[in-house]
Amino acid sequence: MFEVERIVKRALEEDIGLGDITTEATVEAGVTVRAELVAKEDFVVAGLDVAARVFTELDAEVGFEKLKEDGEKVARGEVLAWIRGEARCLLQGERVALNLLQRMSGIATMTARFVREVEGTGTLVVDTRKTVPGLRVLDKYAVRMGGGRNHRTSLYDGVLIKENHVAAAGGIAAAINRARKRISHVLKIEIETRNLDEVREALEAGAEVILLDNMPAETLREAVRLIDGRALSEASGGVTLETIRDIAEAGVDVISVGALTHSCRAVDISLLFED
Amino acid sequence: MFEVERIVKRALEEDIGLGDITTEATVEAGVTVRAELVAKEDFVVAGLDVAARVFTELDAEVGFEKLKEDGEKVARGEVLAWIRGEARCLLQGERVALNLLQRMSGIATMTARFVREVEGTGTLVVDTRKTVPGLRVLDKYAVRMGGGRNHRTSLYDGVLIKENHVAAAGGIAAAINRARKRISHVLKIEIETRNLDEVREALEAGAEVILLDNMPAETLREAVRLIDGRALSEASGGVTLETIRDIAEAGVDVISVGALTHSCRAVDISLLFED
Amino acid sequence: MFEVERIVKRALEEDIGLGDITTEATVEAGVTVRAELVAKEDFVVAGLDVAARVFTELDAEVGFEKLKEDGEKVARGEVLAWIRGEARCLLQGERVALNLLQRMSGIATMTARFVREVEGTGTLVVDTRKTVPGLRVLDKYAVRMGGGRNHRTSLYDGVLIKENHVAAAGGIAAAINRARKRISHVLKIEIETRNLDEVREALEAGAEVILLDNMPAETLREAVRLIDGRALSEASGGVTLETIRDIAEAGVDVISVGALTHSCRAVDISLLFED
Amino acid sequence: MFEVERIVKRALEEDIGLGDITTEATVEAGVTVRAELVAKEDFVVAGLDVAARVFTELDAEVGFEKLKEDGEKVARGEVLAWIRGEARCLLQGERVALNLLQRMSGIATMTARFVREVEGTGTLVVDTRKTVPGLRVLDKYAVRMGGGRNHRTSLYDGVLIKENHVAAAGGIAAAINRARKRISHVLKIEIETRNLDEVREALEAGAEVILLDNMPAETLREAVRLIDGRALSEASGGVTLETIRDIAEAGVDVISVGALTHSCRAVDISLLFED
Amino acid sequence: MFEVERIVKRALEEDIGLGDITTEATVEAGVTVRAELVAKEDFVVAGLDVAARVFTELDAEVGFEKLKEDGEKVARGEVLAWIRGEARCLLQGERVALNLLQRMSGIATMTARFVREVEGTGTLVVDTRKTVPGLRVLDKYAVRMGGGRNHRTSLYDGVLIKENHVAAAGGIAAAINRARKRISHVLKIEIETRNLDEVREALEAGAEVILLDNMPAETLREAVRLIDGRALSEASGGVTLETIRDIAEAGVDVISVGALTHSCRAVDISLLFED
Amino acid sequence: MFEVERIVKRALEEDIGLGDITTEATVEAGVTVRAELVAKEDFVVAGLDVAARVFTELDAEVGFEKLKEDGEKVARGEVLAWIRGEARCLLQGERVALNLLQRMSGIATMTARFVREVEGTGTLVVDTRKTVPGLRVLDKYAVRMGGGRNHRTSLYDGVLIKENHVAAAGGIAAAINRARKRISHVLKIEIETRNLDEVREALEAGAEVILLDNMPAETLREAVRLIDGRALSEASGGVTLETIRDIAEAGVDVISVGALTHSCRAVDISLLFED
Repeated sequence: MFEVERIVKRALEEDIGLGDITTEATVEAGVTVRAELVAKEDFVVAGLDVAARVFTELDAEVGFEKLKEDGEKVARGEVLAWIRGEARCLLQGERVALNLLQRMSGIATMTARFVREVEGTGTLVVDTRKTVPGLRVLDKYAVRMGGGRNHRTSLYDGVLIKENHVAAAGGIAAAINRARKRISHVLKIEIETRNLDEVREALEAGAEVILLDNMPAETLREAVRLIDGRALSEASGGVTLETIRDIAEAGVDVISVGALTHSCRAVDISLLFED
Repeated sequence: MFEVERIVKRALEEDIGLGDITTEATVEAGVTVRAELVAKEDFVVAGLDVAARVFTELDAEVGFEKLKEDGEKVARGEVLAWIRGEARCLLQGERVALNLLQRMSGIATMTARFVREVEGTGTLVVDTRKTVPGLRVLDKYAVRMGGGRNHRTSLYDGVLIKENHVAAAGGIAAAINRARKRISHVLKIEIETRNLDEVREALEAGAEVILLDNMPAETLREAVRLIDGRALSEASGGVTLETIRDIAEAGVDVISVGALTHSCRAVDISLLFED
Repeated sequence: MFEVERIVKRALEEDIGLGDITTEATVEAGVTVRAELVAKEDFVVAGLDVAARVFTELDAEVGFEKLKEDGEKVARGEVLAWIRGEARCLLQGERVALNLLQRMSGIATMTARFVREVEGTGTLVVDTRKTVPGLRVLDKYAVRMGGGRNHRTSLYDGVLIKENHVAAAGGIAAAINRARKRISHVLKIEIETRNLDEVREALEAGAEVILLDNMPAETLREAVRLIDGRALSEASGGVTLETIRDIAEAGVDVISVGALTHSCRAVDISLLFED
Repeated sequence: MFEVERIVKRALEEDIGLGDITTEATVEAGVTVRAELVAKEDFVVAGLDVAARVFTELDAEVGFEKLKEDGEKVARGEVLAWIRGEARCLLQGERVALNLLQRMSGIATMTARFVREVEGTGTLVVDTRKTVPGLRVLDKYAVRMGGGRNHRTSLYDGVLIKENHVAAAGGIAAAINRARKRISHVLKIEIETRNLDEVREALEAGAEVILLDNMPAETLREAVRLIDGRALSEASGGVTLETIRDIAEAGVDVISVGALTHSCRAVDISLLFED
Repeated sequence: MFEVERIVKRALEEDIGLGDITTEATVEAGVTVRAELVAKEDFVVAGLDVAARVFTELDAEVGFEKLKEDGEKVARGEVLAWIRGEARCLLQGERVALNLLQRMSGIATMTARFVREVEGTGTLVVDTRKTVPGLRVLDKYAVRMGGGRNHRTSLYDGVLIKENHVAAAGGIAAAINRARKRISHVLKIEIETRNLDEVREALEAGAEVILLDNMPAETLREAVRLIDGRALSEASGGVTLETIRDIAEAGVDVISVGALTHSCRAVDISLLFED
Repeated sequence: MFEVERIVKRALEEDIGLGDITTEATVEAGVTVRAELVAKEDFVVAGLDVAARVFTELDAEVGFEKLKEDGEKVARGEVLAWIRGEARCLLQGERVALNLLQRMSGIATMTARFVREVEGTGTLVVDTRKTVPGLRVLDKYAVRMGGGRNHRTSLYDGVLIKENHVAAAGGIAAAINRARKRISHVLKIEIETRNLDEVREALEAGAEVILLDNMPAETLREAVRLIDGRALSEASGGVTLETIRDIAEAGVDVISVGALTHSCRAVDISLLFED
């Protein structure tokens, strides 16, 4: 809830430390300027409110006027927002604001590409827990802004029984039964499977979501047939822009993609001061 | 100082929240296992101590035996470390440990590539402040493990007078003079320049490090001649693996590369439980 | 994850402040004693590990030997645990340990009574978010120790569409449809209903859990018939030990009981020092 | 000092976690509503400012108009306060505000009952340290709102030499003498006694407050006679609504009652949205 | 309670920041050394455990052997403690440990001088709240080690009605009566007086400690006569080593001295590494 | 960056604890007063914004009007600032505000005296890390307000190779070379020397700042001649108001003085309420 505030404060403390000595030495207090955030390439923007928060955390008087909204496509050269305030404040917040905005927009843009690939199939593109430590809520928000959906956010708000859990519990059915006795009735039970036998076993034990891990499109298709609407199907494992369409066409309900967040490229955005 | 502890704890809180409900439901307390961290591709490893810390923060009893050291090149299939402890603990820490280790190794690997490109030129490859908010000390450590060097870590431990500071101070000489009156005598004064005239002005005003921003190799060469050892020269701006050799051969002392940290690809590492 | 540590530290800071001035003035450092936690009435115990944590947080050397396990029924006069350590430490931690243990055991005991009432019906007794602010994980743990189950722990790990959400969204179907587009596919959608018409509407819109709020047993019975296994049914609203059996016999899957946590009576436990 | 802020923030973090997913999915941002806090039974209200703080912490724009003041008796059906603000904010803060307000009013109401029982005797009813961990300042404030008085708040701001301290120090006189040499001259020294001999010994040693632990009314009367105004007398130990009048009439200055806070029943209050 | 831990951690974070770059660059990890803390002048030592904590907070393996105890007089050249551990750790903790130890010993030494001046009079020398923000518990501890006593530690654990409170309450008697109705029965009520009339008024209203502010010795003597044991008397205001004897001989019970903490001189202590 | 906020909040928590019980008991809420900060002696003021922050942290409505600016000389009897606000707030913040302002002004005043002594020599007076733990940024700010300059603020933002580092690294040249390979190119390398041979060695190894430790004026003069502008020279070690002029006249660039901060005397300032 106070997570964004915490992230922004932490980032500012990290970057500014005990003071921006260059700015304090060269720029007078009290000088007001106007600057603009400009796209240096085409992308889907995400993080404008977070960027605004960076500046207002430093100085509540800063004005931040959004010209775009998160989730919008922007073209190279377009202005994302105007910022007006103390020159010192803008110089101090610049790097943190850009670091956050460029990463979040990078994730949104990458997500939008994956989502476009599955258009018309009805399959959902969702993220994973392969996010940058400390920024998960922002990473997951950016995925939504790119048109993706979120898987569970932590080990707490979703059940996903993986191979090692199955081994420890003594089999798929045993693991599902144990989970059912402990888990809140408002959570679905998801389980990872590696082949059709495991899919069958999971179905019989009453799994509500079945993760189909690293299966070829053909196997996915059979798995979907097997499941036949009795559980949700989720494909995962090394999904790329090249492979996602085939996977979606196999008929799975959901595809989870780690690359949305673990290897995103920051988009290019500049903060330009007006003369 | 306590920064790594803080990062690890925050990451665990973020990922585990109020509990790993799947593991608690399916895996008995008290079961001990051994697992190994395995490289799934070739890379330069960084972050093994941080990964160890993730598990010991959860349970001080976990044993973590490194088979590789940070900075070492590892080949696909090699084991990086053995981990022995409660199955519950290993399952809970797995994702956080991998997220950190994969990102840090990704940065080290990317840095090593840039460093290899400038081999023999005597030019240093350094990072920037374009790091992921909250993880700067880890990002910068990973750069060192890849053979790079660090620029200032925050706005506090280095002076870098940029274009906007110059404008606010009323010119290059004015900005440098103001800085000299405020800055501790143990810090060097660095200033950004965009052309040879500015380089000259900076030199005359006594700049100790001159940032040559976005200049073509030819201009860099002239700038280096102009400076002639009276200040350190640093090239920056959109440096890539393709362009860095030319820049280094222009004779600059330092090249700063944002891409080391702002767009790194996570390397692939698995945590495998022994049977 | 570090929640119990945080609760215990906060409680100790609150109670000890800048020091236990009485103990420091009257009891020498270095004197070791043994004490026992004794039940002064019959109850279901919960919180022994938390009590142990209070003392070890003060002094890692304290020995805490449990003679009972959480969830066990204990009789008046029985010893729950032996504690051995510095007299100063035991005196300083006593009140905090007892405050936590007595409340948690109170909740477990109350829950066990409700659970006993529904024995044989297959209906689950679950808690609510009506817990004491700051202690929710302990309150919910105690419910489990008493044989109850947990509903969602926060607004984050479960969906419950209430009357006011329905009004804001423009009707039951609209609310459910909106939720389905935003909520992770691993969470079930629960909705509150006040009469059979609403139950029907919720069912048609695909609700996965239907909360039957404040309905008389007769209506509950009809609701269960209507739902007919297509969703989980949950009864709630002013449930008491007197009314819960009737409600369970109406055939609902789950009954949620606020009184488990919002009005629990602390059980009586003493910390006795040996001579 | 910043304790209430801390409690409210902690409670909101606990309840909202990373977001109120139901409200975010079903209620539009920007919709303003008015709601009222309504008493569903008769009680003494306490905690209205704390409840207001819950909402303003979420959104500084929320208006909270109190119609009652803490310490006032309210009747079933009466409105305690009007709240106007974003529907999302009111829905998110509702449970935390009610959990705090219902508990605090429960304590105030229980305290008022004890106070009424001793009316006319001049005896003070005070609380103990048997409060819910983390909420002590609120619990103690609620006691005052019910007409009670506060004993020390922590081990730091008052001296109370108990049986175990006496044993460790080697007797009542020794314990009091040791305390006098260490304790600030602005604190009174209180000591626990179990019989009249101990009362005599405490008096002779100069105790300033004498705790009469678990004594029958007759013994209390004799103790009061013995003390004869040379120290304050305080009765404690299993005091109930049935026994407190007799204890007060024995002439003690103060009666401390653990039940005010350790087993309070939450009163019933609703937050109703206007249509 | 965790106050010393907090102070030490904060001090280390402040001094070490993101790392001791000199030590990391010049001293190998893993090199063990022995060092000693040596007195460079005569003084009363205080803070040895705090100094030890500085090193063990950095590295739990450090050995710290005290040769002196807090409160002891040490002569120039004497060794206070031996420290054995990683060279890196000792170098990193050195400044923080010395800053704390030198200040605390300075306070203890100054206090001891004041206490010696009043020897034989029975008057207590106590501190004030004029301490360095953030270090109050250490400052007050050091006062005790010098033979002084502590006044209240904060605005919470003692009542002191000052001139401005009296003005606001409408007179001395009114202020005391209001306090008596609100303050816990275990705290004494202290009030500031400026002349004998006020002393009389305070006595009549039942003040339990009377602060005699800035009165000449003669007036103090009369005040003591007036009070005649019915309250404690405390002199304060610009007390120096030159004036304290006269004040004590006026017969007051307590003298409070701000200079013990607000203007203390750090004593000279060195940390010497063995060859 | 948020350091001042943290210091002020911590100081208020320390001083006010769970509440200012005297003020709450004797002064009504809602009463507004005006007070003034008055100099009780001549000094250089520093810390007015910090003092203002103390009150606004307690109550954002407090008005604080500065009549002086930090760095200004003020005479006894002059008013530094007017404060208008709730009487309760002013009484609660008084001690913390004065403790900070008196210490900071004490440091500024002491620094100004040292600076005046070296007038005309061109030598800079700088501080050290011998500050009060937790208040370093304020101590260092106060030094600047007194006309001094700052040395590095922590072990992180400057390199200073001391005797023990030299010993560990195996000599002056070795230590400097190791540092050069690790330290950012924007930091100068400073090294401590004890005699002219070491100065020569440091120069040859390329030290950029040479600390001349505890050398007599004559030796300093020779050292300056040796260095001859190839590095900055810094004198340190037991510098006093009596010795600083001689040291400066030896021609060193910088003199560092621990006494500016480790043994400062608080100046006398009062907060007077208007009638």
